[in-house]
Order: sequence, then C-alpha cells, then structure tokens
Amino acid sequence: MDAFFDPGSVAVLGASNDSSKWGFWLAAGALRGAERRRVYLINAKAASIQGQPTYARLRDLPETPELLVISVPGPTVTEVVAEALENGVRAFLIISARVPDADALAVTIREAGGRLIGPNSLGLVDSRNDLLLAWGNFTPGSLAVVTQSGQLGTEIATLAARSGLGISRFASIGGQSDVRAAEVLATLVDDPATAQVALYLESFTGGIALVSALQALRAAGKPTMILTTGASSAGARLAKSHTGSMTTAMDTIDAACRAAGSIRLTTPGQLVELAGFFASAWLPKGRHIGMLSDSGGQGAIAADTAESWNLHVTELTSATRDRAAGILTDADHVDNPIDLDGAGEKNLDVYADLAEVLLTDADIDAVVLSGYFGCYGEDVPDLLDRELTVVDRLGEIVAEAKKPVIVHSMSASSPAVTRLWEHGIPAYTSIEAAMRVLARAGFYAAHSGRLTDTVDLTGPVTPWGTGYAAARAVIEDAGIPVPAAVTVGSVGLGETREPAEAVLGSELTPPFALKAGWPAHKTEVGGICLGLNDLTAVETAYADMVGRLGEGEYILEEMDTREHVVEILVGGRQDENFGPLVVVAAGGTETELFADTWLELAPVTHTEALDMIARLSCSRLLTGWRGRPAADIDALAEVIVAVSRLVAGNNEISEIEINPVRVAPDGALAVDALVVTTEKAPAENPNNEE
Amino acid sequence: MDAFFDPGSVAVLGASNDSSKWGFWLAAGALRGAERRRVYLINAKAASIQGQPTYARLRDLPETPELLVISVPGPTVTEVVAEALENGVRAFLIISARVPDADALAVTIREAGGRLIGPNSLGLVDSRNDLLLAWGNFTPGSLAVVTQSGQLGTEIATLAARSGLGISRFASIGGQSDVRAAEVLATLVDDPATAQVALYLESFTGGIALVSALQALRAAGKPTMILTTGASSAGARLAKSHTGSMTTAMDTIDAACRAAGSIRLTTPGQLVELAGFFASAWLPKGRHIGMLSDSGGQGAIAADTAESWNLHVTELTSATRDRAAGILTDADHVDNPIDLDGAGEKNLDVYADLAEVLLTDADIDAVVLSGYFGCYGEDVPDLLDRELTVVDRLGEIVAEAKKPVIVHSMSASSPAVTRLWEHGIPAYTSIEAAMRVLARAGFYAAHSGRLTDTVDLTGPVTPWGTGYAAARAVIEDAGIPVPAAVTVGSVGLGETREPAEAVLGSELTPPFALKAGWPAHKTEVGGICLGLNDLTAVETAYADMVGRLGEGEYILEEMDTREHVVEILVGGRQDENFGPLVVVAAGGTETELFADTWLELAPVTHTEALDMIARLSCSRLLTGWRGRPAADIDALAEVIVAVSRLVAGNNEISEIEINPVRVAPDGALAVDALVVTTEKAPAENPNNEE
Repeated sequence: MDAFFDPGSVAVLGASNDSSKWGFWLAAGALRGAERRRVYLINAKAASIQGQPTYARLRDLPETPELLVISVPGPTVTEVVAEALENGVRAFLIISARVPDADALAVTIREAGGRLIGPNSLGLVDSRNDLLLAWGNFTPGSLAVVTQSGQLGTEIATLAARSGLGISRFASIGGQSDVRAAEVLATLVDDPATAQVALYLESFTGGIALVSALQALRAAGKPTMILTTGASSAGARLAKSHTGSMTTAMDTIDAACRAAGSIRLTTPGQLVELAGFFASAWLPKGRHIGMLSDSGGQGAIAADTAESWNLHVTELTSATRDRAAGILTDADHVDNPIDLDGAGEKNLDVYADLAEVLLTDADIDAVVLSGYFGCYGEDVPDLLDRELTVVDRLGEIVAEAKKPVIVHSMSASSPAVTRLWEHGIPAYTSIEAAMRVLARAGFYAAHSGRLTDTVDLTGPVTPWGTGYAAARAVIEDAGIPVPAAVTVGSVGLGETREPAEAVLGSELTPPFALKAGWPAHKTEVGGICLGLNDLTAVETAYADMVGRLGEGEYILEEMDTREHVVEILVGGRQDENFGPLVVVAAGGTETELFADTWLELAPVTHTEALDMIARLSCSRLLTGWRGRPAADIDALAEVIVAVSRLVAGNNEISEIEINPVRVAPDGALAVDALVVTTEKAPAENPNNEE
Repeated sequence: MDAFFDPGSVAVLGASNDSSKWGFWLAAGALRGAERRRVYLINAKAASIQGQPTYARLRDLPETPELLVISVPGPTVTEVVAEALENGVRAFLIISARVPDADALAVTIREAGGRLIGPNSLGLVDSRNDLLLAWGNFTPGSLAVVTQSGQLGTEIATLAARSGLGISRFASIGGQSDVRAAEVLATLVDDPATAQVALYLESFTGGIALVSALQALRAAGKPTMILTTGASSAGARLAKSHTGSMTTAMDTIDAACRAAGSIRLTTPGQLVELAGFFASAWLPKGRHIGMLSDSGGQGAIAADTAESWNLHVTELTSATRDRAAGILTDADHVDNPIDLDGAGEKNLDVYADLAEVLLTDADIDAVVLSGYFGCYGEDVPDLLDRELTVVDRLGEIVAEAKKPVIVHSMSASSPAVTRLWEHGIPAYTSIEAAMRVLARAGFYAAHSGRLTDTVDLTGPVTPWGTGYAAARAVIEDAGIPVPAAVTVGSVGLGETREPAEAVLGSELTPPFALKAGWPAHKTEVGGICLGLNDLTAVETAYADMVGRLGEGEYILEEMDTREHVVEILVGGRQDENFGPLVVVAAGGTETELFADTWLELAPVTHTEALDMIARLSCSRLLTGWRGRPAADIDALAEVIVAVSRLVAGNNEISEIEINPVRVAPDGALAVDALVVTTEKAPAENPNNEE
C-alpha cells in the first residue's frame, strides 16, 4: 500500500491546464510533492502543464512510475490500463468515472500482480508524505478519511479543516473494485500522523475483515467513526445506483460497531464534532455529569439536554455538596446543576474551585460549565486576565483528574475559548453539541470492542432433519431446556405411533400440547393445539389435525403452565457480511409494533447476553413488573448464549428462531423452535407426496 | 405596557461607572436612548456617571420618571419602591436579585396602580424605540425574546445576532411577580418590528391566557417558538430553586403548543436556527421533499437524515422523472434523490433546471440541494458569475413556486451562499440543520392552532355519586356506549337487590361480569369477576365477592365477548395551568412500557380525535393488524370527543378514565370507568362504616 500513500514516483495521465478539470488539480497537487518524489505529467496535446514539461505517452517516461493516476474519459480506461500494465505499472489510482466493467478491470490488474484504487475515486492524500492527488486543498492534521463517496469525504475534510482538526490521510476508494476499506484502515494503525479515523461505506461486503481492522485501530488507541447509508429507503435506492451497493440494516452495522469498538454517526458534521472531542479531551469513564452554570435557565436547559442524551445529572453526594457550599457561601441551595446565582461575577475563581470539587468526586465522570464563562474578558476587557487565569487553572485540574471538562460558552471565539481548547477543554456555542459529544464519547468508552474468538462454540451439529422435532433436538443438544415430549404419527421408516401408545409409554403428564412437526409457522396453519387435559382430548385433537393437515410427524409435549411467564424471542442467523448474529426480542405479535429487539454479533458471553436483555424495553417485565416475581433472567441469558454459540459454530445454520422462550421465576423453556439450514427449508410436509 | 417599551422618561437607580457592574450597562444603555426620551441617572455618591450629571435621590429629579429601573442590593428594594410609589412612579423594572418577598412587593405596586417587571429581570430592550436597559449589546432585528431567564434570553439574542437575525424586543420577565409572559406577548402582535417570537418559560401558570396570546401572534403571521425546562428531573429541580417554578410535563406543554399554533424547541441554538428559516423562507405545505445532489454519498446521507426527521423522499412520479431525465441526458437512472453524477460540472444550469422540475411537481413540498453547490465560484473563480446566475434563477423559481428551497453547501460563506440567503433560500453547512428546519417548519405549518371554543361542550353533569354505577351513568349520558347492566346489592335508601331478582327482571343475556361498584381500582382488590355463564355462577361469584369486600353497590353487566377487540384507554383531566385535557393510550398494563399515549387540550373534534388515535403506535392494531378486520375507529373517536366535551364542560370533574374502551369492527364499548370529582374521590366503600 506504500505505492499509494508514499510512492517514489507518480505519473498523472490526463493532466490539464484548465482549472475546472480534475486533471488540473491532480497535476497541481502532484507537483506539490515534487521535492519528495518524481512527478510526471502526461498529456498528448500540451507541451507543458502548469509550467512543467509533459510527456505525450506513458512509454515516453524515463522510468515506470510507481503510481499511475488516471483521469481520462471512462471508456478509454481499459485500453490505458492494458498499456500501463505492459509498461510495468503496478499501482493504479483511477479517478475516471463511467469505466466499463470495473470488476473485470480489477481482475486484470490483480492477475498482473498490480493493485487498483477506484475507479470513481476522488483521490488520495497523505499530508505527512506531501501526497496530494485530489481536488482542492487539504489542511494537514490528525484525522484520516476513508470513503466510498469522494465528495462526502471532502465534506468531512472541509469541516475538519474548519474546526482546526485537519487531515492526515484521505483515501477515496470509489467502488472498491480491488482495494477495499479494511485494507486501507489497516495501514492507519501504524501511521504516526493519524490519531482518529473517519469511514464512509455504502457496502459492508467483507465485514468481518472490516471489524478486525477497526479492532486493530481501537487497540492502537485510534477512535474510528463510521458513516453509512440505508437507514431510509431513499438512501438505499441511491446507494444502489451510486456504487451498486446493497445497504445493510442499521442494527446489524451497529452491532458490528460495538464488536469493533467503533461508533456510528449519521452526518459528517456530527462525525467531525466528535473527532474534535477525541483529539482534545479525556474520555469519560461513565455517564454521570456534574454541571455548573451562572444561569438557572441555561443550567436547566443543559440538564434537560444531558438527560435527553441519557447522561445522568444526579443529586450531589452530601460530601460534594458540602464542599461546594463552602465555596458558594451566599447560596441557599446547592445541587446538581450548581447554580452560581451571581457568585461568578463576584469572584471568577469559583468556576475553577467548583469544577475541581465536582471533578474530584469519584461518582462524577465529566463536568460541564454552561453559560457566560468565556465572555467575561470579551465584554469587560479588565476581566480578561482573571478569566484566562481561571482557564489555566481549569487546564491543570483536568490534567490532574484525567476526566473531561466541557464548556458551553456564549462566546464563539474569545481568547478564553481559544485557551480552553489549548488545554484540551472543548468549548461549544451550543449546549446540544456539548452533550452530544459527551454522550457519544461515553458510548465509545463503554464499548471497547469484543474479541468473539475467545468464546466456545457449539458444533458442528450434524445431521438433522427439517422439522420441529429436529429443531428441538438441535437446541436441546445445545443445552436449551425444552418441554418433555414424544413424537407421534409418522416416526420414520414408514412406522407410525398412535398418541395413546406414546403417552402411555412415557412419563408425560397433562396438560399436553399437540404440534404438527413440519410447518415453519404452525399457528397460521392451525398446527398447534394447546390445553389437552387428558388422553381423550389428545386423541380428538390428533384426529382433527391429521384430518386437516395430513399424516406426518407430530409432537406431543407437556404444556408449560407456570405462572408469571414472560415470552421472549431468541434467534440467530448468518449475515452475508458480518457472519453469525444473535437476536433477542419481545415475544408475541403485538410487541412488533414497538420494534423491541436487540442484536449482537455471535457468539456472546453470559454477561453480554444479560446486557442484550437489559436493552429491551420489555426487560422491565422480567425484573418484577408491578409486583410480580422477577423472572429467571440468567436462564434466559443462557438460552441466548447457547443460540449464539450454535449459530457461530455452524455456518450451515442460516437461521434459528425460538419463539417463544417462556421465562418464569424458576427458569426458561423453549416451547417452539425453527432451524433453517442452507440445505433445505422445512416448509413442506415431507410425508405429503402431492 | 408602553411605559416599559417606550417610556417618555427613564431613571436608573444604581447607575455606576464600574464596567463590571450592572449599573454601568443600564446607565450606558439608557443614555443611548437620550434622543428619544429623558434619561436620569441616580447615584448618591458619584456626581457624574459616564459624563452625565447624576441625581442623589429620586425625589431630586425634575419630573417623575415614567419608568424606574432599579439595580440596588436586593434587601433595600422594598424601601426604594415604597419611596418611588410615594413620588408617583408607576412602572418598575427591577434588575436586583435576592429581593425579599417579591410577591408582596408586586401586590403593593399593583395596589398603587403600578406595574412591575422583575425582580431578577435582566432587562428590557426595544430596538425600534432606542430602548436598551440590559447588559451588553443587542443587534436590531426581527426576533422578539420574552424570557424567564435573562441570560438564556441573552444567549438567544447573541445567537440571533451571529446568524444575522437580530432582536426587535427583549423582555426578561424574571419571576413574573406581576407582569407575566402572556401580557408581554400580547404587545408583540402589533409591534411592527417583530416578525418572530422566542419564549422561555419555567412556569406555565395562567397557561390559558398564554395560549390565547400565542394564538393571536399566529393569527398575525408571527411564528412563536418556545423553550422550557422540566424534561429531566435535574432541570425541574433547578427551575424550582431558580424561579420557584413547578415545571409542567412536556406532553402537556406540547399539546398547548399545538393548540396555540406554536412550536417547542429544546435549545437556544435550535430555536434561532428555526427563527432564521422563518425569517427567510416559504413554509412547506407538507413533508414531501425533492432532493438533488452532485454526490451519491451526500445525497444518500441527506435522504437518510430527511427520513429520520419524518420527511418523505418518495420516488418521483413518471412525469417528473421524465422531465428530469430530459435534463440529465447522460443518466442511466433518475430518482429521488436525483444524483447529478457529474452533470453539474458540465453545466451549472442543471441545478436550477432540476430544482424547477421538482418544485413545480404538485406532490413535492420543498426542495433540498446538497453538496458542492455554493463552492464552485469559491474554488474556481472563473465559475463565480455562472454560479451566481444560477442562484438568481433559483431565487426567481422560489418566488414563483412559493415553496422553500434549502441548500446544504460545503461552503460556509461564499458569495453564492450569501446570495442564496438574499433570495430567501436558507443555506446550511450541515445537512442535519437543513432537515431539522424543514421538518420543524412542516410541523409548524401543519399545526395552525385550534379554536377550541367552537366545539360544543357537555355539561354541567350533576349530581352524581362516587362509584362505578355513577361513572357509567355520566359517560352513558355523554353518549358513550356501555354494556347493559343492572345494579345489585345496596341500591340506595337501605334497599338491597339480589342478583337473581335483578337478572330475571332484566333483558340481560349471559355471559355476565360482576363488578364491585366503589373501588377505584377494581382488579387490584379482586372486585371484578368475568365469564359468569349462568345465574348459578353469578350467585356464587356474588357471595364470594361480598364475603371478601363487604356489602355495597355491585354492578352486573353483560360481558363483551366480541372477537378482534383492541383495548384502548380514553381519559380526561383538568390541568392546573392549561385546563381540560383529553388523553388516549394503548390499553392494558404492558403497553405502559412503551409510553404509547397522546394528549390534547380538550375539547377536540372528531377529526382531531382521529388524529390522536393515529399518533399511537398501537393504532396499527386498529387498522387491520396481520389480516385481522379493522376496528371501528370512528366509534373510538366519538368516545374521545365525548370525554373531551365532558371534561371541558365540567370543571368539577378532575379526572375521567375509561380503561378499557373495547374497540371491535362493530363499535366501541366502555367496560370500565372512573370519574373523580373535586368534591370527593370514590376510594372507599361508603357502605363500610369502619
């Protein structure tokens, strides 16, 4: 990849003197690296470009360029690449759009031992290596940008420059025909200029490699921030026509981000805002905020905004309250948020004194100052020195405590605000920006990535059939409790077993449930009959069901009649990009209304399974809702763990769904299950020949 | 109120030469209006302040000032006011904090025929009338600010100045001891300088007057934007200590905003952002957006952001698609968002051409351009004239279509961006700002306020008892269907009636439900028995219930056994600030988990009731969930209308709750009801004497 980010020589095919053309900007940018590398401009018509002599053809060059940049009309690219390969070029950056059959072109290049970024790339930039092969100017800095949409990447770079952050490396990877995001990300782990990484992707093909690359960046202490599209149908439509990508569901991408220790944002502006925080401030260890304002109204709005971001502005401990009250001697009342109520005007030092009190409270993870601070010296020049002294003290306090302080100031660019940033204290003119970054940094700190390969897997589970009995056997083997049952009807090898015979030969006790073994959705076809209290009822129900659905494999189970049951869905499936997933959701049909579901990459540990359960709105039903006894959440977590190990250990299981798992105070019981393998879906009754 | 916003003379008590004191800023500000009014500075110690001679005492002034501004230590204010009243002052602006017993002071002033703004005010500003009685500088403009927190108001004014909007009038009303927000708002209706209004309140006491004032502003074409606090417990705590206010639930405030035709925001930044849109652009008539981007990635992010704000980016009609394809002759595929895919670089006119195509589509309410537009002339000066020509054309197209066009540009302040704003085309550097304002403007356009006094009320309903039978009678009289029933047990005047006698003497058919008449929460005390299929079952259940709960009034009802029933809660209550409210919510206990509820000021019309139902997540259960027949939504709406009229027509009904209303395809039936009056809560069995 060095050939792309620090080539010894570069040639620009399609260099131009017209500043409204790409070839102009590529040539101008390449020439800015002329002290570091040899630069060749190729143009058959102009003898010189931007004062530099040109070459008419690639083969005229005195050497084979290590990197060839191609900005010629798309339909001519295939021919140009063939010629370049013949001339020994092995690294290609293709800016051209409308290149016919880019995938075939990529294969050609790879087969010749070369590599390709693009086509449809908007260029490469490496600030440290004086590489500028893109439109416009890039301010050097610490943020790397890897993007499937060049212009979206440019927007990120523009916003980063505006916020004082700047760009270490920029890679517009276009359609990813050859070099994909994961490979570029891997180069950033050891890139000394890169401290944060922004990624925009439309396609997550090869998602597992991507997760690994993101985990490596996290391990290197470099936060990665991800944008994608497909949350809306219009966005998905556009991605399809833009890069030919099939977008991925957001909950899957978010699960991958959590596993990778990365964080997803929704817009370039919010990404750059968070990158600025990462570049400056300490990470909060938790979500408890101490707040301080010289305005009751601003403090109240700040508290509301904090809690809307799920940050906690809890009452102060009595020790901290006493310390704060010792500073605010005029105050009737000291609480969180602390209302200065005029004390700041009397003595600016109280800002630092109170920040220190809050920051040294072990229960407080971050401190927010909201209001006039930052404006004193701007409005009353006599106060400037005193204000800057307070800022310097805040800087010392932050360095000592290793916790973030964030300022929401009514001033945008006062000397105090500038000095705050210099001390690693982010200052924002909007309270929502302050709370957004704090909440997101808290999320980031809490999700450091998961190493799923340390969890045992279950498998392989072979062979199995296609019906409910087989699914029951698979999950029972995986350690998931199921009701006692016997198989009746067709039980294999042409043999049949009558219900009476089966019940009498078993230890099953009523009431029973009779279930048709083969339909994927038993309820919808009338394939379940519950509450059969005796053998007569069983026989009647069996006769009726066989009459309606035909001969076949039926399962007669003990029915779960426990009280205080909560029904939960547990499932797993293979995602085409990210591999095995495990899901937990509220059971029943009506809770679908509320999309009460949570998803993680599989496998998960018991602790992670408990966390998944806690994410559900319906988890309150499990913990003792309205005086009911609490359900056995650990037993439910074990079901989740078992399903996650099954789906992770058996690629040929394309889907498992246990719906419901009935969770009561004394354990969890899986009373229906579906296992779909890549071989065959159990949709039809194998005994029905018609 | 003219004495406050355009006094003929003003005196500042506590004027100062120290620029870190309030008295300095008040004096300096007052003097800036010296050409329009007589200004007196009062200070016993300094002979002159800011070059102006002072008066030692109020009584030394050559006239009684029309407005007296007081900025002296709080504890001295009472005495100062008494002296001023003696000297004939009638309008007081009190900046001082820590004024003892402000409410008593307000009464004293009112009884003397005077009026008070404050204490704890941060001042008054009227740009048109050269009135500046506040800290700092205020840029003149069209936004009026009325605020209970002075500094929060200052933040709004600062942000408004920074965004080019400016302030028409600023009123910091402090603790509202006398003059309240509604009265100040009323002055803005005819204020020619004011075009938009920002309001921050912690207390909504007198909310009905506030709604009227906001409605008058709406009728005058002046958008009002509201901030408040109390969404978090920390915010509510701070408001309590800040202005002594008990905060109001956000759903109630939002209902009041909808009724008032106002809109609530959560932060000053977002308020000013929306005010800037209101000041510039046409209101969208709906939520359907046509989008245009020169970047597939930016277009996709824009579409996702739009849909996250519940804006609709639906596929183009074939007519509009054909017109757009006629412009984008190279495009394989034209859809919404339209991806220019290089066409903009070839010919900048396509931006205006396509915006016109989208804007003249009757199904499209607004158009968003996202991406590089605004940067062409900035990056390539040769393109500037052409870009500005396109901007001018866009201005003409917008003026013609009377629909908003919004630009998300990567440039913050290019000549093109400046020119866009001049044409009433807002341009933002963040796509989320563009979508936020569009969504909120759409909300505002859709909620023009409700004139609830045109709806008939039910009432007065007197007299009634305290139990279920009385509640049933009240709602039945109001036209709400209830099951056929007879009263058994104690039926009044010492008389009792046995179930057998009652059933045989009625036309009731089984199954029956037996309900104890007096408990507020029947289920929790075992006061409901359902599914009684014959007289024997009724007698057994009755004997059991009487044995457990005692003698009393019992109701024997026909039980609702219809299929495909959805259970909904309908209720009403009196809010201490905003008066009668009506609420609809998902019935059952578990849906409490999902807070599936909607509230409006009562009364509501049938159409408004249908809208309330549509706001519930569970409304999908009513419209034919998973193949079930649709429920009779009109019948449910009629129940809502009836409850709203009852609660609006009967102030002495403090609460009605019908839970559940059982809604089936053939109608709605109220099967439990509670009516609480201000007289007495029906919590105890009146027949139990112990």
